[in-house]
Amino acid sequence: MSNYLWLVIAAGALGVLYGLIQTASLMKASTGNDKMREIAAAIQEGASAYLRRQYTTIAMVGVVILVAAYFLIGEWAAIGFVIGAVLSGLAGFAGMLISVRANVRTAQAASESLGKGLDLAFRSGAITGMFVAGGALLGVAGYYAILTAGMGFESTSREVIDGLVALGFGASLISIFARLGGGIFTKGADVGGDMVGKVEAGIPEDDPRNAATIADNVGDNVGDCAGMAADLFETYAVTTVATMVLAAIFFRDQPYVDTMMLLPLAICGICVVTSIIGSFFVRLGKSQNIMGALYQGLIVTGVLSVGAVWWIITTLVTGPVTTNTGLVIEPMSLFYSGLVGLAVTAAIVVITEYYTGSNFRPVRSVANASVSGHGTNVIQGLAVSLESTALPALTIIVGIVASYQLAGLFGIAIATTTMLGVAGMIVALDAFGPVTDNAGGIAEMAGLPSEVRHSTDALDAVGNTTKAVTKGYAIGSAGLGALVLFAAYTSDLDYFAANPDLYPFFAGMAEIDFGLTNPYVVVGLLFGGLLPFLFGGMSMMAVGRAAESVVAEVRRQFRENPGIMTYEVKPEYGRAVDILTKAAIKEMIVPSLLPVLSPIILFVAVLSISDKATAFAALGAMLMGVIVTGLFVAISMTSGGGAWDNAKKVIEEGFTDKNGVVHGKGSEAHKAAVTGDTVGDPYKDTSGPAVNPMIKITNIVALLLLAVLASGKVF
Amino acid sequence: MSNYLWLVIAAGALGVLYGLIQTASLMKASTGNDKMREIAAAIQEGASAYLRRQYTTIAMVGVVILVAAYFLIGEWAAIGFVIGAVLSGLAGFAGMLISVRANVRTAQAASESLGKGLDLAFRSGAITGMFVAGGALLGVAGYYAILTAGMGFESTSREVIDGLVALGFGASLISIFARLGGGIFTKGADVGGDMVGKVEAGIPEDDPRNAATIADNVGDNVGDCAGMAADLFETYAVTTVATMVLAAIFFRDQPYVDTMMLLPLAICGICVVTSIIGSFFVRLGKSQNIMGALYQGLIVTGVLSVGAVWWIITTLVTGPVTTNTGLVIEPMSLFYSGLVGLAVTAAIVVITEYYTGSNFRPVRSVANASVSGHGTNVIQGLAVSLESTALPALTIIVGIVASYQLAGLFGIAIATTTMLGVAGMIVALDAFGPVTDNAGGIAEMAGLPSEVRHSTDALDAVGNTTKAVTKGYAIGSAGLGALVLFAAYTSDLDYFAANPDLYPFFAGMAEIDFGLTNPYVVVGLLFGGLLPFLFGGMSMMAVGRAAESVVAEVRRQFRENPGIMTYEVKPEYGRAVDILTKAAIKEMIVPSLLPVLSPIILFVAVLSISDKATAFAALGAMLMGVIVTGLFVAISMTSGGGAWDNAKKVIEEGFTDKNGVVHGKGSEAHKAAVTGDTVGDPYKDTSGPAVNPMIKITNIVALLLLAVLASGKVF
Repeated sequence: MSNYLWLVIAAGALGVLYGLIQTASLMKASTGNDKMREIAAAIQEGASAYLRRQYTTIAMVGVVILVAAYFLIGEWAAIGFVIGAVLSGLAGFAGMLISVRANVRTAQAASESLGKGLDLAFRSGAITGMFVAGGALLGVAGYYAILTAGMGFESTSREVIDGLVALGFGASLISIFARLGGGIFTKGADVGGDMVGKVEAGIPEDDPRNAATIADNVGDNVGDCAGMAADLFETYAVTTVATMVLAAIFFRDQPYVDTMMLLPLAICGICVVTSIIGSFFVRLGKSQNIMGALYQGLIVTGVLSVGAVWWIITTLVTGPVTTNTGLVIEPMSLFYSGLVGLAVTAAIVVITEYYTGSNFRPVRSVANASVSGHGTNVIQGLAVSLESTALPALTIIVGIVASYQLAGLFGIAIATTTMLGVAGMIVALDAFGPVTDNAGGIAEMAGLPSEVRHSTDALDAVGNTTKAVTKGYAIGSAGLGALVLFAAYTSDLDYFAANPDLYPFFAGMAEIDFGLTNPYVVVGLLFGGLLPFLFGGMSMMAVGRAAESVVAEVRRQFRENPGIMTYEVKPEYGRAVDILTKAAIKEMIVPSLLPVLSPIILFVAVLSISDKATAFAALGAMLMGVIVTGLFVAISMTSGGGAWDNAKKVIEEGFTDKNGVVHGKGSEAHKAAVTGDTVGDPYKDTSGPAVNPMIKITNIVALLLLAVLASGKVF
Repeated sequence: MSNYLWLVIAAGALGVLYGLIQTASLMKASTGNDKMREIAAAIQEGASAYLRRQYTTIAMVGVVILVAAYFLIGEWAAIGFVIGAVLSGLAGFAGMLISVRANVRTAQAASESLGKGLDLAFRSGAITGMFVAGGALLGVAGYYAILTAGMGFESTSREVIDGLVALGFGASLISIFARLGGGIFTKGADVGGDMVGKVEAGIPEDDPRNAATIADNVGDNVGDCAGMAADLFETYAVTTVATMVLAAIFFRDQPYVDTMMLLPLAICGICVVTSIIGSFFVRLGKSQNIMGALYQGLIVTGVLSVGAVWWIITTLVTGPVTTNTGLVIEPMSLFYSGLVGLAVTAAIVVITEYYTGSNFRPVRSVANASVSGHGTNVIQGLAVSLESTALPALTIIVGIVASYQLAGLFGIAIATTTMLGVAGMIVALDAFGPVTDNAGGIAEMAGLPSEVRHSTDALDAVGNTTKAVTKGYAIGSAGLGALVLFAAYTSDLDYFAANPDLYPFFAGMAEIDFGLTNPYVVVGLLFGGLLPFLFGGMSMMAVGRAAESVVAEVRRQFRENPGIMTYEVKPEYGRAVDILTKAAIKEMIVPSLLPVLSPIILFVAVLSISDKATAFAALGAMLMGVIVTGLFVAISMTSGGGAWDNAKKVIEEGFTDKNGVVHGKGSEAHKAAVTGDTVGDPYKDTSGPAVNPMIKITNIVALLLLAVLASGKVF
């Protein structure tokens, strides 16, 4: 076993260790007064109860798939599936456990100063980030080490490849449930609570008289923290695995095949280190610019990563390598491909900040449109959401072209891997958002002075942007990595078709035509293309139903207990949490199964009217179709939602329209902005982000379908 | 010249003649009282003034392109461009001229009975429908006759093909401007007027005190009538031309090539006749079911078309034909392909009715969500809009597979042509909607009894569904025809590449790889995919800006003339019309140029970093990318908008929610539904429908780019 693989595992462990040490230090911070602790305890309890039930439900689906994986593919795939699923679940659980402890401490710290609030919130985000990156690296590298060094399988053997792909599938499956379930919970609470509270009863957000407030805060933790952590874990794991699979295919039988398979792991490992270093540079300067403080850390990570990636690539790859297709790749070309990945990350951060930040045209245009009413607010928000897809898509296009010109498909894979290498830092930027959102809620409910809420609001506004950044980053990596996953699919197919003795299902198959002139390719593109739309529709409806159940419950409590409005009676927070828990878990099942079953349905349907080669062509095109529309659907939803949320915040701080009139909290413009925010909620926190794991699942199910057909255990 | 070509021209003339005769009869109907005539005159004046200015502006762009076409391709392309542009413009103008005369007559007829109102409104729609179908057929078949029989060019010569393609381009270019300009005008007026009138001032829709009412009614005529007519003209012309081009390529040098090129024209010709017959069967039965009456006419047209298409195909194609790729096609296979086209039309009608009709789950779910507030209304509407794409997409997928299995790519082309053959009837169903909308406005402003408004509202609600049907139909035909346009592109390329002596630009070009494994194909798909999103964002913003200018103007009038609210002073309707005219014309330019310039930019950009074959591959993939996302964007917008509009109507008629509470006009639920309707307005009447001509333009520009490169006049 290569020493470098040990180092990678050590880097993964370092990420986890960083998380543990920081957690210990975080726990020492003050938790404020009794009232704050009481509220925080209710949130903790609700979040834990929800996640336990969610994971219990997922486990039932998981066991079915585990049994299927065992019998249809083999034991190593089954074990890989378990590792991916369990670690992804753990990443989510850890994210939740941290954030429900950091929220109250952040509220307390923010009551001392904005800088202290930022420091604490960001630190908690960094813990989650390093748990995610470190844990994913540990899982992939560890299982790879077990399979190769431990069990003695060839690195390019089916056992290793199927095992790693199944690990990715486990992670993806958990993450789509977690994203969706958490997303439905959090936005059901948020939307429902706002509808009754802000709009009907005219009480502020997070007012303790609103029975949905605790549920809303629970939602931030189970959706924006746990769901997000599971999602990024999945993205990280799947991308690394896909690059390793591509390396195994491209460099099979070359002396440096093991090195090339190690390369993505090594890049990720070194970037865990640069992310940890960068996290120490997030500090609020004299200008009190929160985004500036975060940028500082991100830039340090980015600059260090340039050097680190250069070092690790030139160390591992000492001379030109040649792919099995005859392409000669220089080490420096691989390094430049890595740079492309970092540049794409930087561009997505900047573009997302432009579209969702409070100081730029898009958000201000939505705020301005709110002055004319609810309708124009929503129209402008939708317009911004549609427009916001163009620049990220162009960035991804340039990224694909540049890295392909440098080092072919493997160049694209390295760019994508390096992009995800810094995921620890990106998650850190994201996870601090919901913590500050929660801190604001606790401050409001505990009746802390309004300056505290002002500080947490300022942090939360930046959090809206960074949350959108992470989602754009995750889906962007899916776009950049589209060709990698597709190449894994086509290369697997080529390999099986070339060895019909070993894989009889593929014997005598006609050549597969992936050309756009093949109508079945167009059929696949359209079928794949409809999935993100249908999925988006289903998940939005789920949020609507969950929110309506909350609205009914809060209205009932107001009606049956008039004392709630006069602060004499405490609302039954637990009932709202219970209702949502049931709703979210029920609603997450069907949409999550859509991407699991669709590839199988398409394949069988086309096979039944045509031949194997045509069915594989349609299935491959479907993988591309789901990315072509999914990329735009996801970016438009996440950026648009962020813009709506911050437009509302801009008005709450007092927005001066072009006629010089100031609109603040409670104004008609504010009401319109609340409507937009409500619409943006499921857009940005349920449907949009869940598209990313959805894309991955369709791709991985296709790869596993090949593995099943190749195993010869069916058909 | 074939006798059948004469018959086709005669059929086109018959459509136009039908329109003229029916117009004469329509003009005899009563125009009601003086007040109604006065209002109608104001609408007529505004609509004519707007369209004149719009077409003047478009003419300036047109002249530039005309000169370019003349010098870059040749005189026959230039003449074709002029014919397409002028006829498309005329179709739009005629649609407007009819509808501004039918509106007041429909209001009068509806005051007598619902049946008479329907009869008059539908007849006016049928006039527009037959003008569109007859005119387009006359243009395409007539120019084809002039070029072949008149000028003596071979039917498969570049002069004929380039001339016909340029005719399609002329039609497309006008129609995108007309759709967008008209769409921005109508929705600027509608949204702006509703924001101030219904929401702020609390006065009903179309209240004469609202300065934007006349503009709103003008908008229905210039957007929903003129814009729609130009759009369908374009769809009809481009599809017919594309099928003819494909026939020229597939059957070049075969003895029956002329027959096969005639076939799409003949199918369209015979369907003009069946559409005219069907139009006489639209009559309100005892059940007073409006949709039922329309279905009656549509079903008659459909059933007659089955026979007629069978007759024309078996008459013209007397034995099996063989394509240049070696595929043998039986006449009956072509007939079955035609049936597929009719079946796709029927399915899209039914699916669209389900998603936008007042009696089905989607619209009722939006109405129900309105009870919880603005936010949930919009969320549910967006969810419906996303979901509504799935079944139409599946229909198109099945249509592609079925017709391809029957008769290859040419089968898909025949299916698409037959689908569009019945366009006269479909347009008739659509154009009656805005007429009744206008009639309702006139009834309200003229103070007619509320039963009249009740009748026109019932007609209008069905009109919302049929409007959505037309848009789904147009975009559906684009989806089904995607492969036809793509095949025209690839076949042209093949032909040029095979004759490098004649076309030196294509000499020595590598083979073009349209496979999904080619990264530049993915780049093309993504670049094409972003266009509908960016275009949608730009056009939504344009409506927002136009609406804001109307809001400001109406507010100003209310403020400066308090007498308006007390009916003492008449608002200055003309000012609102003027402001919108300027805004719409200014705003339509940039988005319309996006699809014209994008193919050229992509081609030049990829060529500059790679080779010709790669640039052509990326360009081809872009054509597919723009359809893959455009199909979903357009359907989601048009169905979603229809659902929102009818949800509002459902509440206005008194909606009983699941708790048994009734919500009517003026209720909180109604206000929320108005917000949804406002959002849906630009969705369904500006951005969504304009995606269809946008897709066509990118495709045709690509074809013309090939023609320019082949002409050797540049490069």
